[in-house]
Amino acid sequence: MKKITISDIAQKAGVSKATVSLVLNNKPINVSKETRENILKISQELNYIPNGIARSLSTNKTETIGLILPDIVNPFFSEIARAIEDTAGKMNYNVMLCNSDSNSFKEEKYSKLLVSKLVSGSIFISGGNSKKSLEILRDNGIPVVLVDRYVEPYDEYSGVFCSNREGIHEAVNYLYEKGRRNVALITGPMTLETSKLRLDAYKEVAEKLEIYNENLVCEGNYSIEGGVNSTEKLLKLNSKVDAIIYCSDVMAFGGIKVLKRKKLKVPGDISVIGYDDISFCEYIEPELTTIKQPIYDMGKEAFKLLIQIINGEVKEKKINFKSKLIIRGTA
Amino acid sequence: MKKITISDIAQKAGVSKATVSLVLNNKPINVSKETRENILKISQELNYIPNGIARSLSTNKTETIGLILPDIVNPFFSEIARAIEDTAGKMNYNVMLCNSDSNSFKEEKYSKLLVSKLVSGSIFISGGNSKKSLEILRDNGIPVVLVDRYVEPYDEYSGVFCSNREGIHEAVNYLYEKGRRNVALITGPMTLETSKLRLDAYKEVAEKLEIYNENLVCEGNYSIEGGVNSTEKLLKLNSKVDAIIYCSDVMAFGGIKVLKRKKLKVPGDISVIGYDDISFCEYIEPELTTIKQPIYDMGKEAFKLLIQIINGEVKEKKINFKSKLIIRGTA
Repeated sequence: MKKITISDIAQKAGVSKATVSLVLNNKPINVSKETRENILKISQELNYIPNGIARSLSTNKTETIGLILPDIVNPFFSEIARAIEDTAGKMNYNVMLCNSDSNSFKEEKYSKLLVSKLVSGSIFISGGNSKKSLEILRDNGIPVVLVDRYVEPYDEYSGVFCSNREGIHEAVNYLYEKGRRNVALITGPMTLETSKLRLDAYKEVAEKLEIYNENLVCEGNYSIEGGVNSTEKLLKLNSKVDAIIYCSDVMAFGGIKVLKRKKLKVPGDISVIGYDDISFCEYIEPELTTIKQPIYDMGKEAFKLLIQIINGEVKEKKINFKSKLIIRGTA
Repeated sequence: MKKITISDIAQKAGVSKATVSLVLNNKPINVSKETRENILKISQELNYIPNGIARSLSTNKTETIGLILPDIVNPFFSEIARAIEDTAGKMNYNVMLCNSDSNSFKEEKYSKLLVSKLVSGSIFISGGNSKKSLEILRDNGIPVVLVDRYVEPYDEYSGVFCSNREGIHEAVNYLYEKGRRNVALITGPMTLETSKLRLDAYKEVAEKLEIYNENLVCEGNYSIEGGVNSTEKLLKLNSKVDAIIYCSDVMAFGGIKVLKRKKLKVPGDISVIGYDDISFCEYIEPELTTIKQPIYDMGKEAFKLLIQIINGEVKEKKINFKSKLIIRGTA
């Protein structure tokens, strides 16, 4: 079975294809009210929908964007994807979903695929090593907006980011005020700029409070297993830990499992703070205290910025949100 | 900036467009080895990628599929989406993501959008009332595979489903063997066929065991709030509940929050069993005992079936998986 075309409507209405086309496109044509209404009625009955791809080729606008992200199963990314798709759908744009697993070969493969499909633009959450993929998109005239993760050279790309400083400062200060003096930090992978920036912010405030101790810093990888492994390692090396800041909520969930199994009370024995504020923070009991990134707004603004670039209204722009401590039950 | 074209390569290589086209498409042409290699080198340097949309118009194959689902933020759907996209990406297919919120107007809007973009096929997770949307796709020759949720008329559509019977039987029998006699069921919305089938399975086995009590059945809505509200309602009406089966894991998380706040021990006072086996089941402590649906395999097989239908190898087919109890810490 094939797509319903103007020919099908013309045949059923007993008029020419040209007449159908003019009526459906609301162009001036000398036909009776009955004929016009009949054509519209038939096109509805047959579920006729214009061919947007044929139009794309002449206008070079597919009204489709690519979305390259590490993994849609990670709730942080599924929440961003939802915000992007909501905003895109309202403007009749489609979103092509691409999971890269933060692998630069997959990112490249998807970048090529998106170019071949003539997407109008792309939103890109980098796995850390995306230079070649971004070149492929740029050389083929595909506007790009980065989200969440920086890519060198920083100045060249538009993007939507969230400050990695304020939230960490707030969190360490809050724990200090509560009497915690052995505040650990489980970072993301050190290949990512955001991981380094969060570590810098932690060092800065911990040194100022005179509680900095390099043994309290442990590299994680943003996954639940990362949270489990880093927490076990941390507890083996430090018996005095009384608070842990995890650089993703998902790692904090893994960490809390380890703490509970070791019969350590959260927050009684060890305070826990996550990072991101994914909706799952409220699924556990006690609910997770976390450093909030405005995930939905970041996705929404990323799409809006991309459209401005596609339409030539903006050339290059960065939008910076602020992170913020949300106090719940674990700290 | 525009997409790199064959003209750009021809100009840089000092040959005709026809020569470039024949070389890149590996067609017979009488050119020197040097010229051939030079053309290939330039096309790589310029990051040239063929226009897949122009080809689509002549072949009528966009190698893009639509994926309409209720909400990508719900982990059950993000895990299915991941499986579909993984399988599609390996075959150079793109997946267009559409969030319907189980709203039939949004489903219709997206169905029209997918037709206009000439998708090769669509995978559809219905919100329960999708007759019109499925007609729009069918009348325009777009093959459809349903996943997870049935749509009337059942016989007309291909789909991948998971039995709603075995898992519930196993769960109730397991709880009975553990001495539980007041086993409650929190269902999904009764507008969905899967909700009805799970309730039927529960009734069947509970009656056989002579523990059926209609006050132990409560309608939920698959969300965390649904889990919270139904659990509060259930506990108000029944003081003796000693086990609860939730028809989604997400509802079980909401339920466990309520139980913990009421100082009821899980599984000591009340056993809890979820449904789906999303990866979050292992994020909480104790880990969630649940009725597993093979989510990843369901997504993977859905895409493979869709491709078979697109290629004309299969006309109509249903694939049925089995559900299965996975025993962890909450029951």
